[in-house]
Amino acid sequence: MIATQNPRVLLAGFEPFGGETVNPSWEAVRAVADEPPGGVDVTAVRLPCVFGAALDVLREAVRAVRPGLVLCTGQAGGRPDLTIERIAVNLDDARIPDNSGGRPVDRPVVPGGPAAYFATLPVKRCVAAVRAAGLPASVSQTAGTFVCNHVFYGLMHLAATEYPTLRGGFVHIPYIPEQVVARSEPSLPLAAAAEALRVIVITAARHTDDIRAVGGATH
Amino acid sequence: MIATQNPRVLLAGFEPFGGETVNPSWEAVRAVADEPPGGVDVTAVRLPCVFGAALDVLREAVRAVRPGLVLCTGQAGGRPDLTIERIAVNLDDARIPDNSGGRPVDRPVVPGGPAAYFATLPVKRCVAAVRAAGLPASVSQTAGTFVCNHVFYGLMHLAATEYPTLRGGFVHIPYIPEQVVARSEPSLPLAAAAEALRVIVITAARHTDDIRAVGGATH
Amino acid sequence: MIATQNPRVLLAGFEPFGGETVNPSWEAVRAVADEPPGGVDVTAVRLPCVFGAALDVLREAVRAVRPGLVLCTGQAGGRPDLTIERIAVNLDDARIPDNSGGRPVDRPVVPGGPAAYFATLPVKRCVAAVRAAGLPASVSQTAGTFVCNHVFYGLMHLAATEYPTLRGGFVHIPYIPEQVVARSEPSLPLAAAAEALRVIVITAARHTDDIRAVGGATH
Amino acid sequence: MIATQNPRVLLAGFEPFGGETVNPSWEAVRAVADEPPGGVDVTAVRLPCVFGAALDVLREAVRAVRPGLVLCTGQAGGRPDLTIERIAVNLDDARIPDNSGGRPVDRPVVPGGPAAYFATLPVKRCVAAVRAAGLPASVSQTAGTFVCNHVFYGLMHLAATEYPTLRGGFVHIPYIPEQVVARSEPSLPLAAAAEALRVIVITAARHTDDIRAVGGATH
Repeated sequence: MIATQNPRVLLAGFEPFGGETVNPSWEAVRAVADEPPGGVDVTAVRLPCVFGAALDVLREAVRAVRPGLVLCTGQAGGRPDLTIERIAVNLDDARIPDNSGGRPVDRPVVPGGPAAYFATLPVKRCVAAVRAAGLPASVSQTAGTFVCNHVFYGLMHLAATEYPTLRGGFVHIPYIPEQVVARSEPSLPLAAAAEALRVIVITAARHTDDIRAVGGATH
Repeated sequence: MIATQNPRVLLAGFEPFGGETVNPSWEAVRAVADEPPGGVDVTAVRLPCVFGAALDVLREAVRAVRPGLVLCTGQAGGRPDLTIERIAVNLDDARIPDNSGGRPVDRPVVPGGPAAYFATLPVKRCVAAVRAAGLPASVSQTAGTFVCNHVFYGLMHLAATEYPTLRGGFVHIPYIPEQVVARSEPSLPLAAAAEALRVIVITAARHTDDIRAVGGATH
Repeated sequence: MIATQNPRVLLAGFEPFGGETVNPSWEAVRAVADEPPGGVDVTAVRLPCVFGAALDVLREAVRAVRPGLVLCTGQAGGRPDLTIERIAVNLDDARIPDNSGGRPVDRPVVPGGPAAYFATLPVKRCVAAVRAAGLPASVSQTAGTFVCNHVFYGLMHLAATEYPTLRGGFVHIPYIPEQVVARSEPSLPLAAAAEALRVIVITAARHTDDIRAVGGATH
Repeated sequence: MIATQNPRVLLAGFEPFGGETVNPSWEAVRAVADEPPGGVDVTAVRLPCVFGAALDVLREAVRAVRPGLVLCTGQAGGRPDLTIERIAVNLDDARIPDNSGGRPVDRPVVPGGPAAYFATLPVKRCVAAVRAAGLPASVSQTAGTFVCNHVFYGLMHLAATEYPTLRGGFVHIPYIPEQVVARSEPSLPLAAAAEALRVIVITAARHTDDIRAVGGATH
């Protein structure tokens, strides 16, 4: 099915965290907003890597932009490919402090909210489209329990409770090579990440139904 | 809080799958049932690695045993430590066929069921207890989307809808060394896995409240 | 010390092997030969992924080109960064067949040759130069025992026995993203690999002495 | 060919290093010396994790014991199986300080010595024997450039220059579970490592010729 709704897309990326000086998610979002794919109206917002505050900024941007689609993105250091998250969990459990020193343990994102929300993207269609563009992508079954998942869950809860036609999802982006020159960890250049994100934006903006494709995990 | 309820524990493990001739989850479950920790009444059940049928067998065992606690276990090839699963997802998405050739893609475990259930174990207390016994364990944020997650979700849905006092969870167990002699993959001997499982059984049987400890994931 | 010798550089890359349709080593070599760094005369040669034959082609190219420096390159699928090999071992031990079906086991590259040769590149200076260019690189302590090591050892033996002023080394190059779109394995785009190789060429062509820098492995 | 020589075996293991409080190599060596396989006379020696000093202690033990076979062992944190090292390299290059604070960079173990020595064990026969005992093992192409390789190279040089009938090799041993309870890294229990080492001792003591088996690496 072709999506005929609201063509405005809100893209969110994070500020650097965990000792890094750059966050590829924000860099990729900015690059896509600077050169958006044709036919899509893209607005970019940069989120603080802080529980609570990140969601406040996102919520405000949704209110201002009134998008039909929100794609949040974050850095997934160590993953070799773009990963499209499938599920957001109602759980804040920080392994490291956030940028304001906050470190919630086993706390719900939204007290009383459901245990989880599924992304309302055609996740496998997006993965297939990125691969067809020659770039690596896969489905992820967990967005973790840090600020990325916090924002993802908060977004889906916002859609479920206040913006019923809003669709949303989350994309994790690998390190860029500049971050790992001396670390022997996987990376993907910014231009490749931005191009992949552009493909995801246009795929998710145009399609609401998914394709049938392998993408699960045995554990 | 000390659990004073029903001391009967049902332990479930799986038959071999994916070309293996042994499944360490069933072996560990059998070993614990043969030498259960003191004060706990343990019943073991072996599940087929088949979507649907696995849950039928589990449901029947719950009906017959009337346990206060159900711990399902499965093999997580490649993981180096016991992992206690935190969340079960309403999604069947098979990367490989199950033992009857079934290979559902993006299908709910329970149509109309909630997106996910949290385990009703003191997950971090169990992890800490295994570690205190000198064995490796950690929290896992995803049980995958294969028969393990299927059974885990089905169990939690059963508890939520039919057995309100039943507590449940899922433990993933590494390969045993015999499975990987020529593969350079992580393993844990059966005796160690069984001992760790014994610790989890007694910890989960005795305690309903969790401890505050680090165990999240940044992604 | 600045190298004042023969400025001719011979670059070797391999044809595809192991079921791949492209070999990033040859692609990178060709790209550098097409746009060589200033002041360096680069010749490219494509080697068959065949024990014996690969070395014949390399030997013939050395005879024809009379280079001062030979850099051989090969694909190291799974490694996330460019790795500059430190040591070539007198051992052919194929885990998979080569492109002609050859599969030597525990056979010397050169019967009666020394157990190993060190690369005669400023290995750590090359690593540092690639990193300074914003690209990921590290020292590797093993080039394996397949055709890459075969060619590397053969080259160093050729230099030791017939071309005393010839310097040589080996660079392993990651998969390119196009190879791993559906595999969740590390990659580095061709343009990045070629640029890194350009940096190595010019660094090795200009310098014979190394810098003092960390680059060892505990095991 | 069956070895009919000197049946005395010297086993060396290391003291803890890198912040650990135990070194599984010494623990395994001690266990084997306490319960040696039949028909073999085993002496154990504990080496300091210090460049130079480790080799002094080993050399003195060889002089005192006059063994026919020396097996050195060390901890290889992160490897999931026992690895039998194939080659020792004439290079000290410390990534971390040794236990006396020494941190040599790119220095030969023996100035003027050959670039490398091969182990004089039937490496693949040992690997096969461990696997036949149900325990995981593989061939390793690099012992690193830290104190393990230092001792391995020094041993082989000692044999080559002073004890022509002495055979020698090096075995890397994984972490034991107690070291990684909270780290999600591979491990192998001490009893399993000791049993595997026992198998290697008896295999290497009885056989000088190797079997033909796959064990190489593409890179």
